[in-house]
Amino acid sequence: MANKINIPWQEKPADCKEVMWRHSNNPIIGRYHIPTSNSIFNSAVVPFEDGFAGVFRCDNKSVQMNIFAGFSKDGINWEISHEPVVMKAGNTEMIESDYKYDPRVTFIEDRYWITWCNGYHGPTIGIAYTFDFKEFFQCENAFLPFNRNGVLFPQKFNGRYAMLSRPSDNGHTPFGDIYISFSPDMKYWGEHRCVMKVAPFDQSAWQCTKIGAGSVPFLTKDGWLMFYHGVINTCNGFRYSMGAAILDKDNPAKVLYRSKPYLIAPAAPYELAGDVPNVVFPCAALEDGEKVAVYYGAADTSVCMAFGYIDEIVDFVKNNSL
Amino acid sequence: MANKINIPWQEKPADCKEVMWRHSNNPIIGRYHIPTSNSIFNSAVVPFEDGFAGVFRCDNKSVQMNIFAGFSKDGINWEISHEPVVMKAGNTEMIESDYKYDPRVTFIEDRYWITWCNGYHGPTIGIAYTFDFKEFFQCENAFLPFNRNGVLFPQKFNGRYAMLSRPSDNGHTPFGDIYISFSPDMKYWGEHRCVMKVAPFDQSAWQCTKIGAGSVPFLTKDGWLMFYHGVINTCNGFRYSMGAAILDKDNPAKVLYRSKPYLIAPAAPYELAGDVPNVVFPCAALEDGEKVAVYYGAADTSVCMAFGYIDEIVDFVKNNSL
Amino acid sequence: MANKINIPWQEKPADCKEVMWRHSNNPIIGRYHIPTSNSIFNSAVVPFEDGFAGVFRCDNKSVQMNIFAGFSKDGINWEISHEPVVMKAGNTEMIESDYKYDPRVTFIEDRYWITWCNGYHGPTIGIAYTFDFKEFFQCENAFLPFNRNGVLFPQKFNGRYAMLSRPSDNGHTPFGDIYISFSPDMKYWGEHRCVMKVAPFDQSAWQCTKIGAGSVPFLTKDGWLMFYHGVINTCNGFRYSMGAAILDKDNPAKVLYRSKPYLIAPAAPYELAGDVPNVVFPCAALEDGEKVAVYYGAADTSVCMAFGYIDEIVDFVKNNSL
Amino acid sequence: MANKINIPWQEKPADCKEVMWRHSNNPIIGRYHIPTSNSIFNSAVVPFEDGFAGVFRCDNKSVQMNIFAGFSKDGINWEISHEPVVMKAGNTEMIESDYKYDPRVTFIEDRYWITWCNGYHGPTIGIAYTFDFKEFFQCENAFLPFNRNGVLFPQKFNGRYAMLSRPSDNGHTPFGDIYISFSPDMKYWGEHRCVMKVAPFDQSAWQCTKIGAGSVPFLTKDGWLMFYHGVINTCNGFRYSMGAAILDKDNPAKVLYRSKPYLIAPAAPYELAGDVPNVVFPCAALEDGEKVAVYYGAADTSVCMAFGYIDEIVDFVKNNSL
Amino acid sequence: MANKINIPWQEKPADCKEVMWRHSNNPIIGRYHIPTSNSIFNSAVVPFEDGFAGVFRCDNKSVQMNIFAGFSKDGINWEISHEPVVMKAGNTEMIESDYKYDPRVTFIEDRYWITWCNGYHGPTIGIAYTFDFKEFFQCENAFLPFNRNGVLFPQKFNGRYAMLSRPSDNGHTPFGDIYISFSPDMKYWGEHRCVMKVAPFDQSAWQCTKIGAGSVPFLTKDGWLMFYHGVINTCNGFRYSMGAAILDKDNPAKVLYRSKPYLIAPAAPYELAGDVPNVVFPCAALEDGEKVAVYYGAADTSVCMAFGYIDEIVDFVKNNSL
Amino acid sequence: MANKINIPWQEKPADCKEVMWRHSNNPIIGRYHIPTSNSIFNSAVVPFEDGFAGVFRCDNKSVQMNIFAGFSKDGINWEISHEPVVMKAGNTEMIESDYKYDPRVTFIEDRYWITWCNGYHGPTIGIAYTFDFKEFFQCENAFLPFNRNGVLFPQKFNGRYAMLSRPSDNGHTPFGDIYISFSPDMKYWGEHRCVMKVAPFDQSAWQCTKIGAGSVPFLTKDGWLMFYHGVINTCNGFRYSMGAAILDKDNPAKVLYRSKPYLIAPAAPYELAGDVPNVVFPCAALEDGEKVAVYYGAADTSVCMAFGYIDEIVDFVKNNSL
Repeated sequence: MANKINIPWQEKPADCKEVMWRHSNNPIIGRYHIPTSNSIFNSAVVPFEDGFAGVFRCDNKSVQMNIFAGFSKDGINWEISHEPVVMKAGNTEMIESDYKYDPRVTFIEDRYWITWCNGYHGPTIGIAYTFDFKEFFQCENAFLPFNRNGVLFPQKFNGRYAMLSRPSDNGHTPFGDIYISFSPDMKYWGEHRCVMKVAPFDQSAWQCTKIGAGSVPFLTKDGWLMFYHGVINTCNGFRYSMGAAILDKDNPAKVLYRSKPYLIAPAAPYELAGDVPNVVFPCAALEDGEKVAVYYGAADTSVCMAFGYIDEIVDFVKNNSL
Repeated sequence: MANKINIPWQEKPADCKEVMWRHSNNPIIGRYHIPTSNSIFNSAVVPFEDGFAGVFRCDNKSVQMNIFAGFSKDGINWEISHEPVVMKAGNTEMIESDYKYDPRVTFIEDRYWITWCNGYHGPTIGIAYTFDFKEFFQCENAFLPFNRNGVLFPQKFNGRYAMLSRPSDNGHTPFGDIYISFSPDMKYWGEHRCVMKVAPFDQSAWQCTKIGAGSVPFLTKDGWLMFYHGVINTCNGFRYSMGAAILDKDNPAKVLYRSKPYLIAPAAPYELAGDVPNVVFPCAALEDGEKVAVYYGAADTSVCMAFGYIDEIVDFVKNNSL
Repeated sequence: MANKINIPWQEKPADCKEVMWRHSNNPIIGRYHIPTSNSIFNSAVVPFEDGFAGVFRCDNKSVQMNIFAGFSKDGINWEISHEPVVMKAGNTEMIESDYKYDPRVTFIEDRYWITWCNGYHGPTIGIAYTFDFKEFFQCENAFLPFNRNGVLFPQKFNGRYAMLSRPSDNGHTPFGDIYISFSPDMKYWGEHRCVMKVAPFDQSAWQCTKIGAGSVPFLTKDGWLMFYHGVINTCNGFRYSMGAAILDKDNPAKVLYRSKPYLIAPAAPYELAGDVPNVVFPCAALEDGEKVAVYYGAADTSVCMAFGYIDEIVDFVKNNSL
Repeated sequence: MANKINIPWQEKPADCKEVMWRHSNNPIIGRYHIPTSNSIFNSAVVPFEDGFAGVFRCDNKSVQMNIFAGFSKDGINWEISHEPVVMKAGNTEMIESDYKYDPRVTFIEDRYWITWCNGYHGPTIGIAYTFDFKEFFQCENAFLPFNRNGVLFPQKFNGRYAMLSRPSDNGHTPFGDIYISFSPDMKYWGEHRCVMKVAPFDQSAWQCTKIGAGSVPFLTKDGWLMFYHGVINTCNGFRYSMGAAILDKDNPAKVLYRSKPYLIAPAAPYELAGDVPNVVFPCAALEDGEKVAVYYGAADTSVCMAFGYIDEIVDFVKNNSL
Repeated sequence: MANKINIPWQEKPADCKEVMWRHSNNPIIGRYHIPTSNSIFNSAVVPFEDGFAGVFRCDNKSVQMNIFAGFSKDGINWEISHEPVVMKAGNTEMIESDYKYDPRVTFIEDRYWITWCNGYHGPTIGIAYTFDFKEFFQCENAFLPFNRNGVLFPQKFNGRYAMLSRPSDNGHTPFGDIYISFSPDMKYWGEHRCVMKVAPFDQSAWQCTKIGAGSVPFLTKDGWLMFYHGVINTCNGFRYSMGAAILDKDNPAKVLYRSKPYLIAPAAPYELAGDVPNVVFPCAALEDGEKVAVYYGAADTSVCMAFGYIDEIVDFVKNNSL
Repeated sequence: MANKINIPWQEKPADCKEVMWRHSNNPIIGRYHIPTSNSIFNSAVVPFEDGFAGVFRCDNKSVQMNIFAGFSKDGINWEISHEPVVMKAGNTEMIESDYKYDPRVTFIEDRYWITWCNGYHGPTIGIAYTFDFKEFFQCENAFLPFNRNGVLFPQKFNGRYAMLSRPSDNGHTPFGDIYISFSPDMKYWGEHRCVMKVAPFDQSAWQCTKIGAGSVPFLTKDGWLMFYHGVINTCNGFRYSMGAAILDKDNPAKVLYRSKPYLIAPAAPYELAGDVPNVVFPCAALEDGEKVAVYYGAADTSVCMAFGYIDEIVDFVKNNSL
């Protein structure tokens, strides 16, 4: 991912004392952005050609979950296909996919890899690749069910692809830690290691119930910066907030720092109310080496953005590490 | 129910692309509409004399659930009694009724029948009739507990009354299908048949947890049109949306079509927040053969309306059937 | 049911201080009594011709639940059919029956009525009649699901059949009270009344979680004597014991007396261990006006018997009433 | 607590028909009132010197719960310390305190006593005293875990301190009644008595799941007036409302009256949405013998106020008693 | 408690390789030992006059839980009263006691103190004293509900009585640690400290779900030896086993050693089957300075004994400490 | 695995009408077979040199789960090591293993592979190999947690190892289907396919809650014969029984036949009572081409055997297929 691309950006508001701030026109993509959609959220974008491409979770009005491709010149105004992504066979015969949701997109070497939560006898991690966001090739599921939030690193480590994921159960999963797994070929996966666990309730309660990888990590001077979500189970349901972690440049299974405070937690009206109230769920980050724009789902209903300076975020995480 | 009555109506907004749309002044009845009320919702109306009459669920500020009669010239501005309905003995001695909620009203032959969720050692279906909405006569409960959402058809079939209902448990009931039962005399019920079950999660998730009959069915050229509610269990609680089904004219136990997409799902502020967030719950429909006005409870807090053209709705359901 | 038939009988053991006692050769019907059976339990018997007939719950080795007819000269040695009961249409078209279990048999007027827990979209009460225990005619289910333990009275009240039942949920049901319903025709049911509720934990804990009708009631000088089961939920599961109630002769919805102590609770090895440990579950009683022989399921595995003198039992219930 | 102090006050709005009304500028303390806070709510204030002092629950952005001191001239504009209260040893060695939340403040004899929910192997009641809201001395926990909502009376009874509390479990606690305990020395507690239990669902459903003491009781002509919270468990989570009880002047274990209707229930936007939607949670009351100003937490997010005339409230509770 | 009394005793069987062994005639008290009993278990004994006295949990055939006094010459053959203990007012007015179970008996200074699980709006710790096991004087409950397994030390510490207990919830309580509390007067209790918590699953799984004090501690050369129960939650329910801990002679809140292996776990038929299968639950220990006889409840059904040499047990605990 | 080895064997008893029968001296390995054991069960054996070797699950008296090697001349009398298996690093650095249980052993090409449930942040599938049952080399875990019942096929398919497993959750897992995964190198795993799901309750209830692979499959004329366990969730806990499936010789992901009735279900005393009552859990099978001896764990307490003729079993499965 090239530095110094023109990422979408808004300057920090004068009265903002936080390290990250929201887009003033959030949500940037509303729930009815395409004709069939009930909601559009938890979606991923990457630089593409002279603009941006993305894969979007659009639940239709039957509340069927699927992923849709889209393009944008500026990263804010998006043209999203009215038809879901159609898969061709990649490194395997076609396998069942009862539903698709929460996509991430990662450019590695020569192509864009899509990972998502794939319905194969329950949720697991689906994998596909594309060169142009028009033709998609589905590969073997990475893992047995049940799993969610699979996020690929944008480079190989010792010749092996690396994927973060969160083993889950077949329901709303009241637990969840982040693991890493490796693969020589995007087909067979192993060397599973636990990377990050939930925080103790009395140290950082917003991430005490479950955590999951969010955006594709990108390299900073201090290591891989990854935005992730953390969940607390209140008496009125799960509340999803966003934090960040810094992973070792060469050994991404090693957490160097991890934000004890959250970076963004549900507080805006579009985060507090919606199909699932109180959700901030990051799935992608655009960065130019200096600034970062994070795309996050709000209340399982719409797509929003938040901004920050990378150095400030990294310093914040280092200075407020769990 | 006579055709071509002057039902309340608002034309479709210019920018509306959906088959049904909300009243611009929703909620039409606010939570504090009568002095004692905490909330008014899940209520039923019918044409009556030169206007309309209704039975309203008004929970008071002790959060006791009861039903109240009301009258309106236009179906939108309502005078609701400040005292709950008082029952006299109908076809039986008076039986216990710890609470009453979620009424429906159906005109059959010569009188108006009220059905509601009646507290008799748990929720079951209470039955009463009235000629004038002033004097009410309570009959035997239709079923053993636990049951909810009892809705009568406006005509008899082979000399037997027909009632839809949803067998439940004694709590918040995480399951629920729609059954039909018949009675020769509004006292003894039998010939119970399963009519509609919840939809598979991957086909129509908004109605995958439980469904229940909503408005009293009315005849269209394709059969009985009934609005019903469907529920999905999110990690932050139940979400209630509205769909429609078309039942066979002569055999109402037979579903001809059933909407795979919802018609209305919680999205307006008064549906997203309230005593129970994310609830759209239809209980009545006024129609003139061409247009239909649906009354629905919003967020277990207030009474709202939505509109549509019957032919468009029927076509939509047929073209988007599960 | 004629008095002074020769019911099976064992005298009270010399060292027995209780009001009822077990058969010395319990279980009288073992789990593998017919070739396909995994277990035989919760079964019902009646006098028939010069001996006895019965309907038995035999779960096969696929653990499918079904009912089987059987005959016996002495009420202890049984010939049970190797094939389940086959139903013909009675007062209705044939309806689905995914499974059948826990039968009861009641003679009314001219025929034997079988009630059982019938699988129709969940458990409810199935009804059939026979004249000869060879040909069976299935009628409409009495109730909507979910219901269990339907037991008919052996006579009509004011021309109406009367049935006890226990409204349930679709799982293992952690609650349960006994209701009565009436029917003019074995097809439509109404006039539902609550008869008996669970006992307070600190007064009679063995019946504090749920109770259900057991044997068909029979008349004594003090009213209808009915054996029923009560359940306590221990930290290691449900424990089922047997008590008795006396219902008013003319108004069977009225409980006159009800045993605060149990009559039989799991204590014998065949009651303490089996497919479901700690279950004593009465389903039938043979009586000759003086003595009574109760048939009960033990540990959901085998059929057992217990005995007592009616007067002693009635006095015990009256003197130890809740 | 002296009468005729200048408590913060707003007159009843002309269109208000209720016995209590909200501050027009609610929330008076927003969630980000101090730099580190995620939320400020469930906090307590008392008259102090020529103004007011308070102890505030401020959860920081790691969602760690702690209590902070604050001062105000008018009871509405508050200066809250940016650092949490630091405890010195009171009547004991220092004991663990994993977290602190939901403080109350009571003036007794010569000092201000703080009680709060203290994290000692789970929630229990912490006790501390201060003379100046700068130096705090922590005493022994009153009880074994698990307990919440400890509220001291402002006087002794027969030489013994008296504390209300709500025994709990170690999670979100789906039950809860109010007890009173006594202590000769703020160290050893006994004479535990049950004061108030939850209300039956069909009589006052807003308080049918759990109740807990709210504000420190104060004397009226009819006895101790205490605002408390009640909870109903809806299908979408707990809903917290506020009622009031009047306890016997000399025997505070005796409830004379108790409001069947709530006084304030979640209806304002800042009560309906926030970190925990649908919460009104009173923790303090300022009164001048005539008027009362109640401080309550809204949606576990911010601090709000409501007002009323004491006589009107007392009459309302007496006339609408459970 | 005097040394060298003649405690009941059986020598270790020749083939026994364990540190403790069962009585060859277990259960020494069967479930029907008194006419009304359904079960007798979890009971406590002490040396008394020239023999022994005890307080026994006898659930009657209504499964009401109560405590009964008994006497024995040899500690094995017991005469248990047929009537439950009757309480007179001790240091307080009489308070409610819905039920009584799981007693312990401790001699302190001049009298025998009984503690038990007392039903006062749920389980808590009841206290009474007796001089002769005929006249009993009930005192204030030690704690607020919910609590179980209150065990007094046989001496005071710095003039204060000391009690172990296990805070609980109002059901079957899937958690539980041992705390200590102190009282100057058996009326007011405080200085609550956590003594022992459950063990990590992978270190000592038999005690990973909950633990509770069992027998009254007695002094050995290494400190207070206390037998306690530990619970693991299997897929088929709770399994209760017995271990031992050694507490500091002067500071009984301090655990010096604690058995990682159990001493006795359910394996005998009378422990594996019964009203609650798989329970070994120690409540008392008789010792003569050299040998110890432990009384334990088996399967919530009967009273059993186990034996051991104190030095061997102490060494075992020290050498196999968690 | 060579044919015509001398497997342990007992002829079918004369009165046995079933296709499989138990060893007359079951359990063949008792719970206290080694000095430290609390229980020995769910263990695996293979032919080895002139006799047999095995890996045994022995929980010690701290109820820590570990695996132990053992040897036997006859397959019935076993010498089991008193020390657990010690692992050396295989194809990876050593990884955490909090516990080990439920081993299986499979000979492939040149060595014996052990798979087991390995505690790595929860249960997953551990892999090791040995040549001599003395020196063991631990490899990478096959999968992310949570997984159980990993069973390897004794040959490769297209150069890839094949493993059956059952994705699970982190508790007692109330669901469970059998999947297959492939690996080129015993390090990276992929090509995950669902093989067998639980049966519908009304068709084969003993396997309606969860199923898991049991013994290592072996080839018969009709395909791979595998014994597996199925579970039903009764009101008193899980009940584990044994069935068999026949998988396609070349495509082991394809089920050809599967027993609708169970082959062995808990009925013997040592299966009905123990640490976890009602468990029959097969983990290994010895066969000589004609006969088969199955090793199964009984009640999570001891090791038992059952026997049958392969042809009869295959025919039974084919004739009674789900």
